Amino acid sequence: MPAIRIDLFEGRSPEVKKQLVETITRAVVDTLGCSAEAVDIILNEVARSHWATGGKLWSEPRE
Amino acid sequence: MPAIRIDLFEGRSPEVKKQLVETITRAVVDTLGCSAEAVDIILNEVARSHWATGGKLWSEPRE
Amino acid sequence: MPAIRIDLFEGRSPEVKKQLVETITRAVVDTLGCSAEAVDIILNEVARSHWATGGKLWSEPRE
Amino acid sequence: MPAIRIDLFEGRSPEVKKQLVETITRAVVDTLGCSAEAVDIILNEVARSHWATGGKLWSEPRE
Amino acid sequence: MPAIRIDLFEGRSPEVKKQLVETITRAVVDTLGCSAEAVDIILNEVARSHWATGGKLWSEPRE
Amino acid sequence: MPAIRIDLFEGRSPEVKKQLVETITRAVVDTLGCSAEAVDIILNEVARSHWATGGKLWSEPRE
Repeated sequence: MPAIRIDLFEGRSPEVKKQLVETITRAVVDTLGCSAEAVDIILNEVARSHWATGGKLWSEPRE
Repeated sequence: MPAIRIDLFEGRSPEVKKQLVETITRAVVDTLGCSAEAVDIILNEVARSHWATGGKLWSEPRE
Repeated sequence: MPAIRIDLFEGRSPEVKKQLVETITRAVVDTLGCSAEAVDIILNEVARSHWATGGKLWSEPRE
Repeated sequence: MPAIRIDLFEGRSPEVKKQLVETITRAVVDTLGCSAEAVDIILNEVARSHWATGGKLWSEPRE
Repeated sequence: MPAIRIDLFEGRSPEVKKQLVETITRAVVDTLGCSAEAVDIILNEVARSHWATGGKLWSEPRE
Repeated sequence: MPAIRIDLFEGRSPEVKKQLVETITRAVVDTLGCSAEAVDIILNEVARSHWATGGKLWSEPRE
């Protein structure tokens, strides 16, 4: 029943997203011993203008 | 004070979303005995290309 | 496929929680036309000392 | 290590969002005594048609 | 920068949780090409009495 | 209407949590120009054994 939410920067290709959910599902199944069908993953793409670290948005220039 | 977040596939009509928040709010009020004003609901629409079950995105063909 | 998360104050009885997930699931099924099995609900109980409105925790006295 | 998610109505200017993450990061650093770099903030803009209070979407007319 | 939240049933051993975050981090690094240090994972254990599927809590008997 | 969720390590005193929600609420009100009553904050304390960065739980020794 694991439910997984992944916040990531937008801009990955459909192929990369496909691989991402495949490899994470496999990692969860191998570790928890649950069925693949029980693994639910939501990808939440976040714009760089909406994610900040250290008080600075990732859309701003960094040194 | 309940705060509710609903992840659902995108593509529902405005009318269905309106009914959804109405019926859920009523269900919460009837069960918890709180005021309707205390019920906050956020609908988070997810593209089929961003939701996976069983390691497969819902935008991919399923048998 | 709707996934629902409900933040609510801790302290509800098991019977109330049971009714809550039943009535919400029914509301979702009736409105979205999905199967009941597709509806996933997580109840996240929050202590009053960990929820604030208006800058004041709900564990503090309110006028 | 605090990770902060802010759901807010869409429509704020980039300048306001910049100020928002700056002031919140400063508030967290001043209060928790952590480094600014440890503070991660995600802004999640929600359309008024996807947020309901009291069973009514904020895109609907209110008295 | 990916931030990952995993809702799972409570009751896994510390060793399994350790393996879970290791394998998932490796899956993310291999797929997205980011550094391991950029991957943040929060495990959120949920009691069976607080998770429902099909309108039934997982603490209730299932056929 | 901003709704804020803060994931932070467990172990802060009630006084620090009180100050945290006060200063964050003030930061939000000053920046967004909303009323304090519109600001909702949930503090979600996470054990070090349930938060990983770089594939390592914070309960494990770090160099």
